[in-house]
Formats: sequence, C-alpha cells, structure tokens
Amino acid sequence: MPIDQLTILAPGLLGGSVALAARAKGSAKRIVIWARRPEVRQALLDAKLGDVIAESPEAAAAEAQLVVIASPVDAIAALARQVAGHLPHGAVLTDVGSVKSDIARDGHAALRGRGHFVGAHPMAGSERTGWEHGSATLFEGRTCFVTPLPETDPRAIKTVADFWRSLGAKVVNVTPADHDRIVAHISHLPQVLASSLGAFLAAKDPAWRDYAGNGLRDTTRIAGSDPELWRTILQQNRTEILASLQNFQGELASFEQALARQDWDAVTSVLARGKQFRDGFR
Amino acid sequence: MPIDQLTILAPGLLGGSVALAARAKGSAKRIVIWARRPEVRQALLDAKLGDVIAESPEAAAAEAQLVVIASPVDAIAALARQVAGHLPHGAVLTDVGSVKSDIARDGHAALRGRGHFVGAHPMAGSERTGWEHGSATLFEGRTCFVTPLPETDPRAIKTVADFWRSLGAKVVNVTPADHDRIVAHISHLPQVLASSLGAFLAAKDPAWRDYAGNGLRDTTRIAGSDPELWRTILQQNRTEILASLQNFQGELASFEQALARQDWDAVTSVLARGKQFRDGFR
Repeated sequence: MPIDQLTILAPGLLGGSVALAARAKGSAKRIVIWARRPEVRQALLDAKLGDVIAESPEAAAAEAQLVVIASPVDAIAALARQVAGHLPHGAVLTDVGSVKSDIARDGHAALRGRGHFVGAHPMAGSERTGWEHGSATLFEGRTCFVTPLPETDPRAIKTVADFWRSLGAKVVNVTPADHDRIVAHISHLPQVLASSLGAFLAAKDPAWRDYAGNGLRDTTRIAGSDPELWRTILQQNRTEILASLQNFQGELASFEQALARQDWDAVTSVLARGKQFRDGFR
Repeated sequence: MPIDQLTILAPGLLGGSVALAARAKGSAKRIVIWARRPEVRQALLDAKLGDVIAESPEAAAAEAQLVVIASPVDAIAALARQVAGHLPHGAVLTDVGSVKSDIARDGHAALRGRGHFVGAHPMAGSERTGWEHGSATLFEGRTCFVTPLPETDPRAIKTVADFWRSLGAKVVNVTPADHDRIVAHISHLPQVLASSLGAFLAAKDPAWRDYAGNGLRDTTRIAGSDPELWRTILQQNRTEILASLQNFQGELASFEQALARQDWDAVTSVLARGKQFRDGFR
C-alpha cells in the first residue's frame, strides 16, 4: 500500500535514489523534498525529482506519513528535532546514516513521542555524492539494516521495513549496537584500508599509479569517497572502528611475520582463507 | 613487421591472451603453443588457439623467433633452460612473470648466449586463471614492464618491446630491481591487504558477507586469486613486499593513533590524500 506522503530531507546520492526508486516502484502517492541550499532546491524543481520542493524542513514534514532524513550522519538528529513539533501525530521518521547507535537514541528522543523514529541504513551507494548521481535501482537486492530500539512501536518498524522492501532492498533487523559493530568490519574498515593505501601510495612516484592494473583500481575505488562524509562516520563509530582496525592490524602482523620467517604454509593459509571468503560472495 | 614464429609455453590467462591478441593484431605469422598437460593440449587443439600445438617445449621452440614463457614464476627459468639448446641462434625469449630480479638473471644465464632473454610483465590479468578466460584485448592500454639487464642485446629489447606494443600495451623499461620494488607497492601489497581482509572477515559471522555493499566487494576482489600462484610471487619478491608491507603498517598505525586520540585533522588528511591518489587514476 503506497504511503500518502513521503518526505525526503537533505537528499544526496541516497536520498535522490530514494525519490527515484519510490516513484519507479509506486511506493508513495506524493513525494515532498527539502534541500538546505536554495540552488539545490531550484535544481530539484528543474529536475522534477519530487512532486513538491519545500522551502523548509518543517513545511516538508507537515503532512508526511514517512520522513526519510538523508543528510550526513552528524546532521540527522538535529533535523529530527527541527521537524518534531511539525509532524502529524503518528508520523514515522527514518534515515540512511551509516552509523546507528547515537542516531537511534537521539532520533527517538527528538520526537518526544509525537512520531516514531526507526533508524535505517541501506548498504548501497558509491564513491560518488549528490542526488544527481542517484538511481532508481540503487537499492535493488541490497541489504537495508533497520535498527529499532526495544521501545520502538512495532507498527512503525513495519512501516519502515515495508518501505525499504518496496524500493527493492532486503531488510535485516538488528540492534543499533550490532549494526555499528557489523559495519565497522564490512564497510568502515575497508574504507580505512582503501584510504590508507591510497595515502601511502600518494607519497610515492606519481608514475607508479599509471602503471597499475585493475587490482589497485578496485582495491582503492572507495578511497575516492568524500573525506568530510567519512570523517563524520569515523567520529560516530570511532570505538567499533578502532576495535576492528586493531584486530585487523594483528591479522596483518601475523601475515608479515609468516612472510618474514618464510612460513609458506601460514602465508598460503591466509591467501586460501581470503579466497574462500571472496568466492562466497552471493 | 610480424614475427615469423611466436611460441607460447605453458599458457594460462596471460599466455592465452597473448595468443588471442597476437592473432587479432597480426603480430605473428605462425603461433605455436605447448602446454604441460596432454588434456590441455587437446583442448587448445579443439579451440584452435594456435596454428600448431607442440608435444614438447623443445619442439615448440625449435623454429621460434620469439618465445613467450607464460608459466607461473617458479617454472620460468627451468623452461628457459629446457629449451635453450633447441632455439634457433638469435631467438628472443620473454615471459609474463610478476617478479623479475631472479627471472631476469636466471633467464639470461639459462640461454648461455644462444638466445636473448628479456623479462616482461604485463600489468593485466584478473582473479581468474586459465587460458580459456583469455581475451584478445587484455593488454589494450595496459602497462607492460620490460626489464633488460645492462648486458642485454638492444635489438632483443626492441623485439620484445615492439611485440608487447603490437598487442596494445604501453611499454615501460625499468631495471628488474626497480620493477620488483614498484610492483611490491602497486600490486603485491594490495593483494596482501585484500587477502588479509578476506581472511580476517572469514572468521566472522558468515551472514555479514551477504550484508556488504560494493565497497567490500571491490576492495576484496583480488583476494579471489589463486593462492598457489600468489605464494610463488610472494616467495620471489619477499624482501620488497616485506619492506612495503612494514611501511604500510606504519601508515596504518599512524591512522589508528589519530583515530584513538580523536585528531580529526590527521584523520581527514589521510582520507583526503587517499582521495587525491584515487582521483588521479587515468
């Protein structure tokens, strides 16, 4: 059953894709969008991305059944607080942030019982940013984490899960804390490694980069992501990322020691376990 | 000017691609191939990959103007020794191995002045193996390192460089030692990181892998490579890889410490330098 009014606040790549996918899938009867910068609002109007481009978050939220906050993680709770007093009773808020513990708690608190906050994190995106790079099929077949609190209204959880499913995503319900531990390993650690490898090689002869094959190109692709966006993610998930990174450093040190002492069985075991992991990708 | 007879010994993904590209580009009038296993020779015959499928390396090399040894790195020098006494005088041998210092020295010594060994390493390939995955366009626009010794005959160097250029590659002349230091950074270190990350995550909840987005998929793609092939590369380039890995571990430790002490300027600087490196890919 389509949502009467879907409101998207501060669309970037993910928010723009939510608008495109919701329209393509018929997930909402009406799509209202607000963006912070006037020139972006004009561009959204020109692109006819939503049915209405609102002048303020409050106006955008006023008749919303579901609000998707698509801003960077450090602005999500503030936007929830800003619209809280203007929501219809029983409205549901969700987001697309890459870290969930702080947001789930602050989002819930922000609404003061007037609406329901149910955090979400679609595992889709790219190193590109901006709503103009959005795609109606971005969420197709992708995991979307939904991270309710114990006190979250079950109907609100269902609304959010059904919405993400309607966009093509596979919904996985986890606690905010479990979410943050999982993505520290499968998303944030890979980002740290790609960025660190890029930064390490940036200090070498620039010609080396042009010599490289597809291996380095793929290994470092996500290093092309927006540094400011990632700084806020690293800030919000610092503890889990540190734990994951430190454990990985131990793995890497074991490998280095095996290579140093020419323990080829240990070296080959890492290569084989790495291959087994990679070959198991669905 | 096409080569009269091109001989390819022990084709895998790269050797199969050399055959396909040489035919597509008209780089050789006649292509002779030898593979170790009889069933592979039969399959090569059925696939009509070469003009002649030889029963032995000696027979394959007997009338060759240019021989490409496409075996794993630990078998290249032995094959050069095996065919040395059977080559026409002045024949040129090259290879596709990922490490060059040992091979350039041993290949040169193997021929005892009867022919000329000029090591080569095309920066192309994939996590897949086997001549049947070869492609006529694999070398198009890719770097091919050519690694002569100071005593190598300049005409032999030109023969090998012209041949790789005829297949579409961009030839870069470097010493074997410089080659090994460069690829330790831009190819072998990324492989170690991808494999170690895969091995690290293989020990976690298997469901996590299915949650991952394209970031982890790309970052770990080369972890799917053949462990035995990579063991031999790590063996031959151990010293340079160890140095590169240890320096990278220092980079990673600096990042971890910046994250631990919440030095967000330092964290953002790594992210920004990583992005700058990645954005500069041609």
